[in-house]
Amino acid sequence: MLAHRGAPFAPPSVTDLASVLMTSPAGRHFLQIPGPTNVPERILRAIDRATIDHRGPQFGALGREVLAGMQALFKTRSPVVIYPASGTGAWEAALVNTLDPGDRVLMAETGQFATLWKNMAARLGLQPEFIAGDWRRGADPGAIEAALIADTAHAIRAVCVVHNETSTGVTSRIGAVRAAIDRARHPALFMADTISSLGSIDYRHDEWEVDVTVGGSQKGLMLPPGLSFNALSDKALAAARRSKMPKSYWAWEEMLASNKSGYFPYTPATNLLYGLREALTMLLEEQGLEQVFRRHDRHADATRKAVRAWGLELQCLEPAEFSSSLTAVRMPSGHSEVRFRQIVLERFDMSLGSGLGKIADKVFRIGHLGDFNDLSLLGTLAGVEMGLELAGVPHSKGGVAAAMSALTAVATVASAEVRSAA
Amino acid sequence: MLAHRGAPFAPPSVTDLASVLMTSPAGRHFLQIPGPTNVPERILRAIDRATIDHRGPQFGALGREVLAGMQALFKTRSPVVIYPASGTGAWEAALVNTLDPGDRVLMAETGQFATLWKNMAARLGLQPEFIAGDWRRGADPGAIEAALIADTAHAIRAVCVVHNETSTGVTSRIGAVRAAIDRARHPALFMADTISSLGSIDYRHDEWEVDVTVGGSQKGLMLPPGLSFNALSDKALAAARRSKMPKSYWAWEEMLASNKSGYFPYTPATNLLYGLREALTMLLEEQGLEQVFRRHDRHADATRKAVRAWGLELQCLEPAEFSSSLTAVRMPSGHSEVRFRQIVLERFDMSLGSGLGKIADKVFRIGHLGDFNDLSLLGTLAGVEMGLELAGVPHSKGGVAAAMSALTAVATVASAEVRSAA
Amino acid sequence: MLAHRGAPFAPPSVTDLASVLMTSPAGRHFLQIPGPTNVPERILRAIDRATIDHRGPQFGALGREVLAGMQALFKTRSPVVIYPASGTGAWEAALVNTLDPGDRVLMAETGQFATLWKNMAARLGLQPEFIAGDWRRGADPGAIEAALIADTAHAIRAVCVVHNETSTGVTSRIGAVRAAIDRARHPALFMADTISSLGSIDYRHDEWEVDVTVGGSQKGLMLPPGLSFNALSDKALAAARRSKMPKSYWAWEEMLASNKSGYFPYTPATNLLYGLREALTMLLEEQGLEQVFRRHDRHADATRKAVRAWGLELQCLEPAEFSSSLTAVRMPSGHSEVRFRQIVLERFDMSLGSGLGKIADKVFRIGHLGDFNDLSLLGTLAGVEMGLELAGVPHSKGGVAAAMSALTAVATVASAEVRSAA
Amino acid sequence: MLAHRGAPFAPPSVTDLASVLMTSPAGRHFLQIPGPTNVPERILRAIDRATIDHRGPQFGALGREVLAGMQALFKTRSPVVIYPASGTGAWEAALVNTLDPGDRVLMAETGQFATLWKNMAARLGLQPEFIAGDWRRGADPGAIEAALIADTAHAIRAVCVVHNETSTGVTSRIGAVRAAIDRARHPALFMADTISSLGSIDYRHDEWEVDVTVGGSQKGLMLPPGLSFNALSDKALAAARRSKMPKSYWAWEEMLASNKSGYFPYTPATNLLYGLREALTMLLEEQGLEQVFRRHDRHADATRKAVRAWGLELQCLEPAEFSSSLTAVRMPSGHSEVRFRQIVLERFDMSLGSGLGKIADKVFRIGHLGDFNDLSLLGTLAGVEMGLELAGVPHSKGGVAAAMSALTAVATVASAEVRSAA
Repeated sequence: MLAHRGAPFAPPSVTDLASVLMTSPAGRHFLQIPGPTNVPERILRAIDRATIDHRGPQFGALGREVLAGMQALFKTRSPVVIYPASGTGAWEAALVNTLDPGDRVLMAETGQFATLWKNMAARLGLQPEFIAGDWRRGADPGAIEAALIADTAHAIRAVCVVHNETSTGVTSRIGAVRAAIDRARHPALFMADTISSLGSIDYRHDEWEVDVTVGGSQKGLMLPPGLSFNALSDKALAAARRSKMPKSYWAWEEMLASNKSGYFPYTPATNLLYGLREALTMLLEEQGLEQVFRRHDRHADATRKAVRAWGLELQCLEPAEFSSSLTAVRMPSGHSEVRFRQIVLERFDMSLGSGLGKIADKVFRIGHLGDFNDLSLLGTLAGVEMGLELAGVPHSKGGVAAAMSALTAVATVASAEVRSAA
Repeated sequence: MLAHRGAPFAPPSVTDLASVLMTSPAGRHFLQIPGPTNVPERILRAIDRATIDHRGPQFGALGREVLAGMQALFKTRSPVVIYPASGTGAWEAALVNTLDPGDRVLMAETGQFATLWKNMAARLGLQPEFIAGDWRRGADPGAIEAALIADTAHAIRAVCVVHNETSTGVTSRIGAVRAAIDRARHPALFMADTISSLGSIDYRHDEWEVDVTVGGSQKGLMLPPGLSFNALSDKALAAARRSKMPKSYWAWEEMLASNKSGYFPYTPATNLLYGLREALTMLLEEQGLEQVFRRHDRHADATRKAVRAWGLELQCLEPAEFSSSLTAVRMPSGHSEVRFRQIVLERFDMSLGSGLGKIADKVFRIGHLGDFNDLSLLGTLAGVEMGLELAGVPHSKGGVAAAMSALTAVATVASAEVRSAA
Repeated sequence: MLAHRGAPFAPPSVTDLASVLMTSPAGRHFLQIPGPTNVPERILRAIDRATIDHRGPQFGALGREVLAGMQALFKTRSPVVIYPASGTGAWEAALVNTLDPGDRVLMAETGQFATLWKNMAARLGLQPEFIAGDWRRGADPGAIEAALIADTAHAIRAVCVVHNETSTGVTSRIGAVRAAIDRARHPALFMADTISSLGSIDYRHDEWEVDVTVGGSQKGLMLPPGLSFNALSDKALAAARRSKMPKSYWAWEEMLASNKSGYFPYTPATNLLYGLREALTMLLEEQGLEQVFRRHDRHADATRKAVRAWGLELQCLEPAEFSSSLTAVRMPSGHSEVRFRQIVLERFDMSLGSGLGKIADKVFRIGHLGDFNDLSLLGTLAGVEMGLELAGVPHSKGGVAAAMSALTAVATVASAEVRSAA
Repeated sequence: MLAHRGAPFAPPSVTDLASVLMTSPAGRHFLQIPGPTNVPERILRAIDRATIDHRGPQFGALGREVLAGMQALFKTRSPVVIYPASGTGAWEAALVNTLDPGDRVLMAETGQFATLWKNMAARLGLQPEFIAGDWRRGADPGAIEAALIADTAHAIRAVCVVHNETSTGVTSRIGAVRAAIDRARHPALFMADTISSLGSIDYRHDEWEVDVTVGGSQKGLMLPPGLSFNALSDKALAAARRSKMPKSYWAWEEMLASNKSGYFPYTPATNLLYGLREALTMLLEEQGLEQVFRRHDRHADATRKAVRAWGLELQCLEPAEFSSSLTAVRMPSGHSEVRFRQIVLERFDMSLGSGLGKIADKVFRIGHLGDFNDLSLLGTLAGVEMGLELAGVPHSKGGVAAAMSALTAVATVASAEVRSAA
């Protein structure tokens, strides 16, 4: 039994927990934070293989295969860079490869992760301009357009938007932002963070003419954390050739040179690349990317129906911006999401996402992305519904029932389609 | 995508399925048959270790440890024999070690597995007498007592009862059967099959004076199939010394001689023994066996509340005999459980147990045993409820809701106990 | 550190070793007994997958695939039966499916395993006739022919030979035995045990008209122990229809009926079947069976050259019968193989095979079968050579050097062939 | 069969190799490059566990445990920082956390990795001064002392030395360098790279008063690549508070703040941390660190004896600086190490380290570090000896024999010690 069970609010001691680290209570933990997500056994088992020589011929084949697969995932014909690093590193890479010290970058305040990226830009010596937001809507294409038009000197060097804001469950419309930049006829680079959308929500690097897209391994890609990505454009590559930011680990130049033959300039995270290969096979070849997106849409829709049935409020205000990978739910006033989540963890062995930054203790987040299916979603929603009950949070019952109705309706339609197609 | 998806009733071709054998649709399969059960990752990973020399010193320590652990699990101080075989083999071992060709054995018809064991006895040259049953109740202690009293010549050499009938979800009262034998003052051996109860439902080999208890690895023990067990008594050992049934693989004598030092007379299934060691650690040391039984009781209770809310009928008629490891549900007349389960498998990637033997296509079974928790149970019940809807089976909604109420009520009580204890 | 290190001859206590069971000293253990063999990580990882419903469509595909693969491995078009049992069980199955109580069977004393099989036959109520042997030669076709010719009444119902005698490293000539039976015009069934040759040494069930071939999983098939096999013939099937031996678990009839669609009459060892599928892919598709046999021949040849260089004597006297899967080496008089092997285990973390039965403490055995390569063989031989030194066993150095010469000579030839083919 | 076999010099095509990526020829690959090293199955299996919430209570316990373990490994009471990154990232972290743009750093040219670190410093805007070396000796304490004494203005801000130069097999004497700095009474920071020595060769962060020690996961720690480390000192922390280099991902400040409770400021590589925990248990608790160092010394000594027996020349000229984790061997003039290694890979499935930078095609490297034992070392040396033969490289035979003599001599001594201690 986990030490945190039955002793809710006491901090666990090292001794107690260390001994149970590899122990679990009965059944599988429900890891329903919006990433890291539940890693499928196939991917874990792929990672669990002997490390090979990163300079040998097998490695080159592996490298070429995963690099090509990542292009398909980002929907780009330009190169993708794979870092042995967390997503935060890929944020840094996007900035230091393309910009000069003191450059102005226009960033949209969509939530906590947009704020962290902005803070990073400042720490790296850039001058971020942060278009204020209420954390309940996506980046505003109109505001971006206005800011760019106002920048007649073209001092703004980059526009940075978080595609799917993991702290709020809001998906910004990257295509609309692209159109806004185009309307402003502004030469700024366009950068997007897809850490919690890649492999879960449709994303089109080339079609939307994004210059640097940032991605990570531990969400829709279903891998453990430890890999992150930059998808590039010709314009980004041109900017990189001129960039004066100091850099070494993150530098694209040697990466791309080595990547041509499938190798890396320094030791790559070989075993995570085994997992990446398996993940790409699952997403691109077996399940089909568009099918994966539809599954995420369906689960998000069922989740929102449950939230409404409970009488709770969604953090995201704009239906066109509802995230398909996670749902952030506002707690009724006077009720703590921290306490609620702790009860859910203790009683039902499920991890939910916390409120972050400005909305700490006010919002909880349900991750429904990655390797996930209808019954696991319903188990998740049941855990939320029972947790609301046990925590004394005012709500109507019937959330799970509403989600079941949504999912059977879809199943019925799908079934009819199959029959008519047969 | 599994070949069986979207093409419901066509038999899968070898080619299609072979290539997807190691593939899975999104998320984890819900394996809710009453065994094999969901194997926890700890146990799979324990099995996934290099095979060692079964004659070396490490092996002896392993052997001694798992043999001692199995005694604790059966609640016996007598030896337990571990076979590299399915549970069916342990049935055969119980009979051939203790009896002579042509011996009469008294067996109780509780369902399909009792019938199969009876058939085996006949095939092995014994004369089983089968006390008829309606497959909705456990073994009747009164009928057993009567049969034994009638056997004034003591020609009956053994009484065989299935503790938990996996085909019906009925748990026979082994203690009451023991009392019946005692009241009849009959010297017959007493044998019980605990294949689907061991590690899930309280069982007391010594206290109930059972002479041979049969068990298997793939249910409450949370292992893959491939190991089975005989727990013995002094009386069984004495019978074995006299037994004239031909035997070699199943013979206890060499087993027990080798087991004294932790070894086996022929090559044991070493890697499954690694898993057994991990399973015993989980059940006996970490979770606590009584706590494990209470969990199974709680899940069974919530499942029955769901069944009643659906307006469906339980196969088991006697509340004192409700099984805590599985629930068998009767289909409304005119509705096929085969079709229902196929829809559940196709739409929700969940395997349920079929109707067997006499009740084929009339009963489906929900396994809720082994490594299992509240949220997985609710996902399971949601799959059943949605499957009933999609299959057009008449039912009331609200089964999942009823189960949630049952589980939160228990959680509230548990929570109050923790607070008062703190 | 293993408890057995540094405390050579004291028996390990349960406490010490239990805690280190999953611990290992630095580097990989060399498991050079003649089975179980070193299981490749691919196979272990295949076994380490979620157990599936043994009545579901995926399982049927798996079943059909491995059953077909086993036919290819045995080189037969007749059915192969797969048991969830050790090889000893498959011995029993061969006898009880085909014979009647009291039947005479002709068996050849090639070593300890032939003796054990003979003992089993006696315990099962058969009358084995054991053609005496010196444990240094294979079954004698001439003696078998003579015995059969003498049996004018055709009372002998079966001839049983161990193909590769694991206790002595002698491979009997099954084709020559078949010819002897044919010359005697005797109708006896022909049974062969290939437990330590299957997948390592060429074997041809159909061509040699063997009626029942017995096999196991944990040697050339590179799996952990827990599966065993019977390959059949039409004549064996006809005998089975008439056989009066009592049987249930081992009965072919239900097995073959269920196997037609890829299923089993009782719960199969599903996870080991995953491993079997992987093993068959490796042997039949990737490496090629004939190539696998040549590799074993090459390693056995190099091993014998090492033994001769050490000045030690091979147990096998007949070059035409040298085993390619293991080599048994005679200790110089007055030197204990038990002590020698203990030193090798303690100092070099390598398990070697012991002397068994009549040749206990007189012979040690080097397993060089299964998933094995040149450098592991040389590490193995180095461990033997150093162990001889440390144990004070009289020998000449140079065994490893002789093996290296043998292996480079072969490599040079292979290399030349490649060049001329290019 | 690997595509690279039998077609030595043709570049492998993507198609061919991609399909065999997870395939291997018979037996285990010998990964004898000087890192990544052979990952023990225990560590791979620890990594192969479900990812947990990096904000939950279990994670905090894991974090505290591995952070404490890393202090023991570096022999420091100061904090250790763990990055989700390759070792190259930890090099960058050491520089950007402590220095200002334009700072002078004194670096010692010991080989290719020292050169790469120097190049990195220049790319990051520092001014490295490179004390020239011949790649056959370690850093010269006298030269460092002289350079520091000459720097009367104390413009040199840091002295950077590679402890174990992976390209040459030379171990610099860090204690002696420390003494040189002290004698010069120079306030420069002292930084050391232990990427290929940590956990293999004795290293004492506190005793030698190193300010920043850089480490990586994939060598002596026996993990796959993907984690790297900075061990700090109070002086380094004070420098970090003043440092003006732009940084974010590598910044120690937030790391140390989060680490206090066992957490990380951004998503850590959770599954690799599972492996790190297992590795630390193995090194610190089970095997004992000093014992691990002695094992590496012993293997290095045996390897050098083999090299001398072959009549080949060691790259390292100074016996006091022989590396215990790898041995670099010079090829006779006119012979290509590239071709030699390719033959070894094709014929014996062993990867050896190549010559790097200035000594490309002139030196090959044998890694004998990490999870390794005597018999694997002898298999490795046998592969080298046979490869020399097949490649036509002039040499004397007897290298393996010399190594065996060395290892048995040690074993004999150890054995005698055990007896006298008993």
